[in-house]
Amino acid sequence: MATLGLIEYTEASPEVRAIYDDIMATRKTDWINNFWKALAHDPVTLRKTWETAKDLMSHGPLDELTSELVYLAVSITNSCGYCIASHTASARKKGMTDEQFKELQAIVAFANANNRLAAGYQIEIDERFR
Amino acid sequence: MATLGLIEYTEASPEVRAIYDDIMATRKTDWINNFWKALAHDPVTLRKTWETAKDLMSHGPLDELTSELVYLAVSITNSCGYCIASHTASARKKGMTDEQFKELQAIVAFANANNRLAAGYQIEIDERFR
Amino acid sequence: MATLGLIEYTEASPEVRAIYDDIMATRKTDWINNFWKALAHDPVTLRKTWETAKDLMSHGPLDELTSELVYLAVSITNSCGYCIASHTASARKKGMTDEQFKELQAIVAFANANNRLAAGYQIEIDERFR
Amino acid sequence: MATLGLIEYTEASPEVRAIYDDIMATRKTDWINNFWKALAHDPVTLRKTWETAKDLMSHGPLDELTSELVYLAVSITNSCGYCIASHTASARKKGMTDEQFKELQAIVAFANANNRLAAGYQIEIDERFR
Amino acid sequence: MATLGLIEYTEASPEVRAIYDDIMATRKTDWINNFWKALAHDPVTLRKTWETAKDLMSHGPLDELTSELVYLAVSITNSCGYCIASHTASARKKGMTDEQFKELQAIVAFANANNRLAAGYQIEIDERFR
Amino acid sequence: MATLGLIEYTEASPEVRAIYDDIMATRKTDWINNFWKALAHDPVTLRKTWETAKDLMSHGPLDELTSELVYLAVSITNSCGYCIASHTASARKKGMTDEQFKELQAIVAFANANNRLAAGYQIEIDERFR
Repeated sequence: MATLGLIEYTEASPEVRAIYDDIMATRKTDWINNFWKALAHDPVTLRKTWETAKDLMSHGPLDELTSELVYLAVSITNSCGYCIASHTASARKKGMTDEQFKELQAIVAFANANNRLAAGYQIEIDERFR
Repeated sequence: MATLGLIEYTEASPEVRAIYDDIMATRKTDWINNFWKALAHDPVTLRKTWETAKDLMSHGPLDELTSELVYLAVSITNSCGYCIASHTASARKKGMTDEQFKELQAIVAFANANNRLAAGYQIEIDERFR
Repeated sequence: MATLGLIEYTEASPEVRAIYDDIMATRKTDWINNFWKALAHDPVTLRKTWETAKDLMSHGPLDELTSELVYLAVSITNSCGYCIASHTASARKKGMTDEQFKELQAIVAFANANNRLAAGYQIEIDERFR
Repeated sequence: MATLGLIEYTEASPEVRAIYDDIMATRKTDWINNFWKALAHDPVTLRKTWETAKDLMSHGPLDELTSELVYLAVSITNSCGYCIASHTASARKKGMTDEQFKELQAIVAFANANNRLAAGYQIEIDERFR
Repeated sequence: MATLGLIEYTEASPEVRAIYDDIMATRKTDWINNFWKALAHDPVTLRKTWETAKDLMSHGPLDELTSELVYLAVSITNSCGYCIASHTASARKKGMTDEQFKELQAIVAFANANNRLAAGYQIEIDERFR
Repeated sequence: MATLGLIEYTEASPEVRAIYDDIMATRKTDWINNFWKALAHDPVTLRKTWETAKDLMSHGPLDELTSELVYLAVSITNSCGYCIASHTASARKKGMTDEQFKELQAIVAFANANNRLAAGYQIEIDERFR
């Protein structure tokens, strides 16, 4: 098989199962999405990624919704189909309204356009911005 | 000259000058940055870009700071040096703290990493995310 | 039809068929994948691409497996679905183990993250690296 | 030294010198830009790249100016500073006017924006486009 | 539902319907593709995007076909599946021949390769290109 | 100041200093490069990044040089100037020869080209690669 496939809860090692349990408990849900089930092939990366997610995507200097919007903006810019689908869902779960979703799209498109205008016109950084 | 250079206020057409005036009035500042001075070579694009900036980057479904953070996240992902410098400055002006800046960086890095894990492991979109 | 489709061996020109024959002989296989069948619409590009592949992806300053891993790292970074699928397969054929595959993913994710940290923090190149 | 540096005409091998001569003769100029001087460290890549440039960027199914505009559009999208500078210069040499340059920028920005709207809204391909 | 879905003509608001009418009249066609039907959720972005499309993609400093080729080159570089499919179709409609399509692909691939050679060899911009 | 600047050893907190010490000891060197000095503003990200670097970039399923080549290939694809400079240096330190460096460049360019051919020709994944 070309890909490694997904590791379901019932076939996971105790180490992986403990992380699955923590994901479900933290997110107050009873299922695990494919991202974690694929990463489970590499338990060290699974653990580090989940720890960072738990730390960064929760309330901290940026609130939870803002963190999700930033994550989604990156995923759209990189055209990551999986990440767009999953983080649109999690942003909604954290309160993103339709109006906010649409404005996010517009800002992401706008920034991508302006990034190229800045590059194409070969604009030098203003002294005040250094 | 390879690039078109920058159009200063004193040499701008009345049409461009009116936009410069609006930028300075809206932003309560007395200078124009290089991005607008370069776009001024194309007054239609200058006007549309400024109108969209005024509309999108102000308070709406997303507040001003969140809009800036999203814009900055895109610019970092695209490695646009000019845009990173100018929008780090405007995000600070709109209240971004050092702690928020650092968390933003960490989330942008994290999302860029995970975007590639999703691609490399060829992860299919979960039914629930469709 | 929107795309040009694929050129099968039986319908290929003698020029294209000779390249198909060389691909199968070189790779000790009896089939041609879709990449070559699509490029066959442009025999010059087909020939150049195959010659470069034969030259670069074989044993040289870098061994065959390393060449495949580098190729795969680029394809993951660019989210090229076709290329990820085909070069994961060819890397496996050249000996990539599951452990190596997982470490590759982790390094590609790590590099993509750090590339953005370097951009976002606007880090200047150290004198020693110049 | 971090980079390999540039190979000047006087220090080039006969093989590289012959390519430099062909570049200058073809382009009716008396100098070689840094791109070729860097590639000269790898004479096979230098030769292949120059042959492809001579073939693709000259008049063929697409005229010379269109080819340059397409090349420049890619380079702006990738934020390749060197490539933007050198291909803006060559596009001008092949007749690109200021008005065309500005429209090119606007289209490249527009396409980059719309690429993200298509990704973010998760738009499926219309049956008619398949 | 994860995405907002598509807004069909019959369910569109008068404001959106007027834009749909203008798209069909301008393009001399009787259907609306999914891009516009998704953007219709955000009527302001729909209107601005359509106005810019009408302005930029028609005959101006660059002719219609050249504009489409530039747009397509960007979309291929960004791997935007939807945009590649729809703009390949519109480029064909505006006269792109198979030979031109194939040369476009070859140039886009060539520019993407050279962009990385310029980056990897850390090539400095020639004085003459500044 | 627009950026946060660099944190030198003498001004670092004990927590950061301990990481600097570990970097220097592990790498058998007496200096710290700017990447770590910038990340030091965010000690948690500094620690995690260094731990991952120590783990991933050392000998494991992939040897140290291969890991560096993969990292460098990603950085070139993303045009990250800082990362290209620093990881070209570390790849050399780990034994990368000039011949290997040049082949790496050629493969990265080749993969970037082919990624776009696969996208532009809209090539479907072969059944055997799934």
